[in-house]
Amino acid sequence: MILEGIVTTVSPTGVVNIAPMGPRVEGADFRHFLLRPFPTSKTLAHLKLHPEGVLHVTDDVWLLAQAAVGAVDPPPRMMPANVVQGQVLADACRWYEFRVTAIDEREERVRIEAEVVHVGRSRDFFGFNRAKHAVVEAAILATRVRLLPADEIAAEFRRLAVMVGKTGGAEEHRAFDFLQEYVDGAAPGEDGTP
Amino acid sequence: MILEGIVTTVSPTGVVNIAPMGPRVEGADFRHFLLRPFPTSKTLAHLKLHPEGVLHVTDDVWLLAQAAVGAVDPPPRMMPANVVQGQVLADACRWYEFRVTAIDEREERVRIEAEVVHVGRSRDFFGFNRAKHAVVEAAILATRVRLLPADEIAAEFRRLAVMVGKTGGAEEHRAFDFLQEYVDGAAPGEDGTP
Repeated sequence: MILEGIVTTVSPTGVVNIAPMGPRVEGADFRHFLLRPFPTSKTLAHLKLHPEGVLHVTDDVWLLAQAAVGAVDPPPRMMPANVVQGQVLADACRWYEFRVTAIDEREERVRIEAEVVHVGRSRDFFGFNRAKHAVVEAAILATRVRLLPADEIAAEFRRLAVMVGKTGGAEEHRAFDFLQEYVDGAAPGEDGTP
Repeated sequence: MILEGIVTTVSPTGVVNIAPMGPRVEGADFRHFLLRPFPTSKTLAHLKLHPEGVLHVTDDVWLLAQAAVGAVDPPPRMMPANVVQGQVLADACRWYEFRVTAIDEREERVRIEAEVVHVGRSRDFFGFNRAKHAVVEAAILATRVRLLPADEIAAEFRRLAVMVGKTGGAEEHRAFDFLQEYVDGAAPGEDGTP
């Protein structure tokens, strides 16, 4: 199963990268997982220099939306990981501190195998909420804004907006509006250039 | 915010009703919520006879899919509630035992106000998974199979099937296939009758 989570890694100079990632896991109490980042991802670059990081389960769609399309501003509250050299998002529901056991760069999507060395919990995941999920879908679309036709993205956003309106709270509206502005701003201009 | 959960209520003769419900709640640590069932719902009938029940947060989409369109077979494992006269779904992530404080039947959707009197936890909610959410959407569509055009439902199911295939595990496939069979079976015949 694919878990839509957030991975933090740290550069040799201490810069934290916060990246939405969809690792392949087995059940909710997994001890191993597989990441499939693009070769250009900062997560991969960091993990090649220091093979430890933290995978988070969170329902914080405002954080997820920001991390999907750029920097999180202001940076979220973090705390040092318990076992690995890494940073934990303090507001996450659960976190999985991990060590990389193998990296395979032969395919277009790199395969990073990781072993969980510590699990932490701080709060409950809300549960099923259609608005939160609409933001997840909107965030995924936003990362593909230069790959997909603008009218296709606009149509999907209109569909998702209905769910956010019907079932979301203030945070879901804020995150969705943020992504809407992002994709509107990224739309090609009249001369066809982005 | 709307929480897509499951409510259990008990009839005077001890029959348990298991109903997917979308109560309006405030945050994850809510102490009150609002249910909006249809006047014909068993949940309303039961709560008018005995004003207690249990609201569950679960990521078990197989249970959710079955409860959305009929009886859960075999019945899920249950245990007596701690504080109210009701039944707890043993495999739920969390449960909120409640007492009804007001019922207003003046609108088409009844308004049931409830007060949480006990919260229980048994396991973590998986987190964001697009396949689980696709099953939630499919279950909602399945309950509207006689209200929506068949080709609209078929198109949505094709879209959702892609997400289940890409990101789901065995339980998500099983639940989605079950709902697919349900809507296929419920499609109007050649003479136009359902």
